[in-house]
Amino acid sequence: MLELYHCDPNANSGKPMMALKEKGVDFVSHYVNLPRFEQHEPAYLRVNPRGQAPTLVHDGLVITESTLMCEYIDEAFEGPPLRPASPRARARMRAWNKYLDEEFGPSLSMIAWGRFLGPMYRNTDRAEVEALLARIPTEERRRTWRTAIFDEFPAGALDESLLRLEEGARLLESSLARSPWLAGDSFSIADIVGYNMAGGMPRLFGQIMNDASTPRCMEWLERVRSRPAIRAALAMDRGALRAAGRPPLEGSP
Amino acid sequence: MLELYHCDPNANSGKPMMALKEKGVDFVSHYVNLPRFEQHEPAYLRVNPRGQAPTLVHDGLVITESTLMCEYIDEAFEGPPLRPASPRARARMRAWNKYLDEEFGPSLSMIAWGRFLGPMYRNTDRAEVEALLARIPTEERRRTWRTAIFDEFPAGALDESLLRLEEGARLLESSLARSPWLAGDSFSIADIVGYNMAGGMPRLFGQIMNDASTPRCMEWLERVRSRPAIRAALAMDRGALRAAGRPPLEGSP
Repeated sequence: MLELYHCDPNANSGKPMMALKEKGVDFVSHYVNLPRFEQHEPAYLRVNPRGQAPTLVHDGLVITESTLMCEYIDEAFEGPPLRPASPRARARMRAWNKYLDEEFGPSLSMIAWGRFLGPMYRNTDRAEVEALLARIPTEERRRTWRTAIFDEFPAGALDESLLRLEEGARLLESSLARSPWLAGDSFSIADIVGYNMAGGMPRLFGQIMNDASTPRCMEWLERVRSRPAIRAALAMDRGALRAAGRPPLEGSP
Repeated sequence: MLELYHCDPNANSGKPMMALKEKGVDFVSHYVNLPRFEQHEPAYLRVNPRGQAPTLVHDGLVITESTLMCEYIDEAFEGPPLRPASPRARARMRAWNKYLDEEFGPSLSMIAWGRFLGPMYRNTDRAEVEALLARIPTEERRRTWRTAIFDEFPAGALDESLLRLEEGARLLESSLARSPWLAGDSFSIADIVGYNMAGGMPRLFGQIMNDASTPRCMEWLERVRSRPAIRAALAMDRGALRAAGRPPLEGSP
């Protein structure tokens, strides 16, 4: 049996949802409401002790890293390939994945927290916030959340994250000048990861990603968004993030 | 032509060196003396503008992430496979790689700097250190080095890194109780990454990794170390790290 625990199709949860839809693989969907901190409830911690979503469970195999889920899904199931055939293009795909997950994504996340999510939680009853924090299973994750909610980022960190987003937009634009998809001539996991990371940029950071300065990024986002499988994944949105007043970026900082 | 820019076979540089030796692939070796900051010299920055080693260059393809080099080497060349055949075992391999690179490795690096390398640089002439720092190509990397050299880590960060190393040793030990290699029954890239990260543990952190508390780790390190290809890679050590009084961990924090 193939089960996916996920929130709305944004950021990390969106990656395996889109990969599964692209492959045409059926799965049992378990919705985890991140803004309500369902990822820290005991039932979920038995699935993923780190209390993070998404989690993929396939006949006893548990995968907790969203980009690795995509490679696994592509290797384990029939369906259209989500990785290029050539080793060179695969290296390019993985370099994009790593950059997006480890540099672009965390910068985006930090700014989203600083600008949008932190203020929302700070306007919530303090005791309620402390109760939510108390349920986080590890000290390290608790500190990460506390830093995000109470805006305790180091001085200059938000400015630097903004510079990184600008760099990211430039890198995407110049890659898309060379090929229609991030890893080359064919759609790949890099486009899934890229869409999940950069899909909200034109709306949230319109000064960085827009028709005038990054036309190729805008076309590429539309090209990804118009794929039937991506539409099908996006249709699984149940609005938990929007209902919480959050922009469509997965909640975990 | 296949070229590898690398320092001694430790940490990041060691990964592609060992992968190439395991595959039996010839390559042109370019030695980059990290303690002398050769990675920040103009000639090297033309190869890798980020000023980090290693860098793999294959007929115009440039790969700057050491673990991704290993997957590329395995996919692009003939020779014994460095990845398990089954998707499940590959997922396990990649989960190890990600954990080792993003959690265990940075913790190890932070402690190594705090305990060994920072004091050494702080005992060096300040003007000389500032001159070395001034050559670092990006502000972000400069800050990382400055933090490491002048011990400006956040309060508690070193203690937390030590806890993470202990957790890492427990995770390794329990994985090795289930199978002889990290990804299962066969030697894989996860063992290469693991050896490069944990190989120095018994000597540097003997209270964490030793015959009594982590016997399987000790046997596994010996099993890796005794492979002919690993020996061949280790024989390429030119002593830059040792000459600089550094423990055998790659210099870049």
